[in-house]
Amino acid sequence: MDEDGNARRSRRRRPPVAGKGTTDDLDLFTRYSRLRNPFPPMRVYSDDEVENIHLTALQLLETLGMRVLSGSVRALLAAAGAQVDEGSQVVRVDPALVGKALETAPHEFTVRALDPVRSVPIGAGHLAIAPVAGPPNVVDVRKGRRPGTMEDLRNFIRLSQTFDVIHLLGPCVEPQDVEVNIRHLEFTLAQLTLADKPPWVFCRGRQQIRDCFEMIRLAHGLDEGEFRNHVCAYTVVNTNSPRQLDIPMAEGIVEFANAGQMTIVTPFTLAGAMAPVTVTGALTLAHMEALFGITLAQLVRPGAPVVYGTFTSNVDMKSGAPAFGTPEFTKACFGAGQLARRIGIPWRSSSATASNSPDAQAAYEAEMSLWGAVLARCDFLLHGAGWLEGGLSASYEKFILDIEMLQMFAELFQPLGAGADEIAAMAIEEVAPGGHFFAAAHTMQRYRTAFYSPLVSARQNYGQWQEGGSPSAAERAVGVWERKLREYQAPRRDSAILEAVTDYAERRRTEGGAAPVS
Amino acid sequence: MDEDGNARRSRRRRPPVAGKGTTDDLDLFTRYSRLRNPFPPMRVYSDDEVENIHLTALQLLETLGMRVLSGSVRALLAAAGAQVDEGSQVVRVDPALVGKALETAPHEFTVRALDPVRSVPIGAGHLAIAPVAGPPNVVDVRKGRRPGTMEDLRNFIRLSQTFDVIHLLGPCVEPQDVEVNIRHLEFTLAQLTLADKPPWVFCRGRQQIRDCFEMIRLAHGLDEGEFRNHVCAYTVVNTNSPRQLDIPMAEGIVEFANAGQMTIVTPFTLAGAMAPVTVTGALTLAHMEALFGITLAQLVRPGAPVVYGTFTSNVDMKSGAPAFGTPEFTKACFGAGQLARRIGIPWRSSSATASNSPDAQAAYEAEMSLWGAVLARCDFLLHGAGWLEGGLSASYEKFILDIEMLQMFAELFQPLGAGADEIAAMAIEEVAPGGHFFAAAHTMQRYRTAFYSPLVSARQNYGQWQEGGSPSAAERAVGVWERKLREYQAPRRDSAILEAVTDYAERRRTEGGAAPVS
Repeated sequence: MDEDGNARRSRRRRPPVAGKGTTDDLDLFTRYSRLRNPFPPMRVYSDDEVENIHLTALQLLETLGMRVLSGSVRALLAAAGAQVDEGSQVVRVDPALVGKALETAPHEFTVRALDPVRSVPIGAGHLAIAPVAGPPNVVDVRKGRRPGTMEDLRNFIRLSQTFDVIHLLGPCVEPQDVEVNIRHLEFTLAQLTLADKPPWVFCRGRQQIRDCFEMIRLAHGLDEGEFRNHVCAYTVVNTNSPRQLDIPMAEGIVEFANAGQMTIVTPFTLAGAMAPVTVTGALTLAHMEALFGITLAQLVRPGAPVVYGTFTSNVDMKSGAPAFGTPEFTKACFGAGQLARRIGIPWRSSSATASNSPDAQAAYEAEMSLWGAVLARCDFLLHGAGWLEGGLSASYEKFILDIEMLQMFAELFQPLGAGADEIAAMAIEEVAPGGHFFAAAHTMQRYRTAFYSPLVSARQNYGQWQEGGSPSAAERAVGVWERKLREYQAPRRDSAILEAVTDYAERRRTEGGAAPVS
Repeated sequence: MDEDGNARRSRRRRPPVAGKGTTDDLDLFTRYSRLRNPFPPMRVYSDDEVENIHLTALQLLETLGMRVLSGSVRALLAAAGAQVDEGSQVVRVDPALVGKALETAPHEFTVRALDPVRSVPIGAGHLAIAPVAGPPNVVDVRKGRRPGTMEDLRNFIRLSQTFDVIHLLGPCVEPQDVEVNIRHLEFTLAQLTLADKPPWVFCRGRQQIRDCFEMIRLAHGLDEGEFRNHVCAYTVVNTNSPRQLDIPMAEGIVEFANAGQMTIVTPFTLAGAMAPVTVTGALTLAHMEALFGITLAQLVRPGAPVVYGTFTSNVDMKSGAPAFGTPEFTKACFGAGQLARRIGIPWRSSSATASNSPDAQAAYEAEMSLWGAVLARCDFLLHGAGWLEGGLSASYEKFILDIEMLQMFAELFQPLGAGADEIAAMAIEEVAPGGHFFAAAHTMQRYRTAFYSPLVSARQNYGQWQEGGSPSAAERAVGVWERKLREYQAPRRDSAILEAVTDYAERRRTEGGAAPVS
């Protein structure tokens, strides 16, 4: 059967050499550790339209402003020249203040990893990828859905360390079996001992942040001055759209800017819920709020590493439930990328889905998100692997399926070339009409590494697949994450440094840790 | 829980009006019946590289040529100036002959439908979509996989008629319960009576083609001269890569060109199997073969409507099995689109997957295919809905999932705009910090039609979804296709015309039909 049912030749012939891969997976994946996006930026707005949105956001910041729940941050903003109304807690900033902030925010910087080869460039055409962040639940095909535990979080850190296409760590699931006052210590310790990629720190109060920074500083063997001048950790600050910044988020921006650590300011603007029902309106609100957060960071410390985050999607128009990976989401990516380029700051997007299981919907919504992010030249992709159920669950199988999709993009980024070796006229000459290329010299030299070798995708014929129990891609992914966890090895670490970090966590644990601020 | 686990506000609030859709599905989908691709063409080659590939293909046509199994077609080519070696059946054409053909091949044309509003423009920025073509098997979630029947084929024609995002009909499954000599009559009759979109005709011998053309001519109420001047049917000719054209395919090109009907010439070049192991090499071979078929059509009748087809993918490097929707497939799309623009002929691509079930793999491979096709400015998408298992099965559920993905692209093609109504500063002013937009006037005026309303995608919360039996997207798709078949209504048809078509089929049936040629 040929592709359109016309011809009747078998195409299931095998190559002459049994192609059992001899190359280690890790070797194959090394190329994934630093991605450069080769595609031109997609546009959904004219330059005039981008300017229109930007100027409207500036004007709304000046006339409407943002409500800031932290008194100390309002005072800081007032001192810097913002108009503060203490009664309503509303802070108005004029375009000049925002403009000055945009001049000092860096266009690109590097997040330092414990292993320098893992350091992550942000901006300048690179695509940095972090795993899912924040779900309270964990789910897998066999055991179903349950509250996240510390061991689940450790597993996701191990998986994040394993795959080179994941460049930073993240709070893949909330470890609900750990008391909230010491959760930040356990999480940071797990990141610093199980992996050597840059860690995430939550903004849940100044003391928690300081604890985490101290542990990360010790792990890097830096003194306090050096730490302030090297980006070694990151966080995401979500505004409480519309137009509100709560205490932990506002104070988080201040702490991170002071310490020279990276803040992604991401308004979560669901069109029709916490944002206008038009995508452009939701982006305008998001732009306004992100500019506010970025301005705050730059007021605290000019040059502080910030990322312009957008998470604009829409609600389901029948139920009001959030929807992700929709056409509106993808278009919002295109628009947000344009706005990010307008202000010259690295842009963060997401891979997301509303699906409750790692099924076809989860895949096509993730793809719509990924293409939106990649074509809009996203610099930082959060929720790159493991996000399910609108972010309420971290899924082990979705993590693997997402890795597959990310690796496919990484392969897509590689050039084809059209020199004599690639055009291969000599191979075409070698093979007779109606023949095949399996044994051609050109094939034999290249076939082992010619194509992407998938993690999960099956190419078995139907009979073989049925004999194997007709597993779906999600079911096949079970074996992959289980094997990767079995094969996982912790990175080597200087024992003195390891001891210093562990001692700090232990001391703070015995002191009772620090209460989260909300 | 907010998107990154930072904030803790519910986002499952409902809009103030229970948004039970009052608009009929068909109204909502009307916009899908004619798609214009707004995206700029993606490039994977420099202009020099494109020229390199094109010139190499021309040179290989002159030096190596193609083996043509049909003696009458070799004679026709010899008469037109090609070099024919009767011993090896190899036909060599020089660049001048190809160049002349490319001058007469139309850049755009329209395929006429029985209902004129369904007529399909090909080229000029339109994206025309046809369903899966050619699988021997049919599969659905409940009954599993089995040989295709005439009733299955009728069902797929009904579904193709139902969804406006499908623009032409196709041989979605091989009706194996119908004797091969009359299969073409039954298939054509089903297309002409169950739908009013342009039909497919197989190239399985001159007499079969003539039977089908006669039925289509009668259905349109055209005389023979008029029929030759209106494109009313289409086919796909697959070369037998490498470098071979068999009898039914070669004669099909001649019959279609003579009758002024549309031929898509598609080499099926799997890199590493019937084509060089490099994507560029596989595209070079495909380009050579497509140019040969296009040249033949233009020699028969200058101006004959032809489409430049590419189906370049790769084999699995471990097993030699075909792979689809791979990164190599997507890059091949980008390259093929460039080659099509180089020769100025509408380009056909595909939506494909190697998956054996309508799972996550089926979705992400279809998405990789679709984005490849759309970004490379595909003019004609074959296998747009229903393809599964490398084209060996037509899947009812995959058909619905594909419709969802296609509709999402159609929505993505709609502009966002950034005028005052879209930017919605008035809505942002209306809602207090930390409030919501559900009840804003701007929302109330727009929310019913603001966002794409999905067919299959679920946004229920986990509890509701579990109560409903935790159905996957594929399982939910069952209810969709069953409902659409129940609700299906045949288009109205002039009874005299219907009778003429039916009478012709009946007469030819009693005459024994026509044996397929292979």
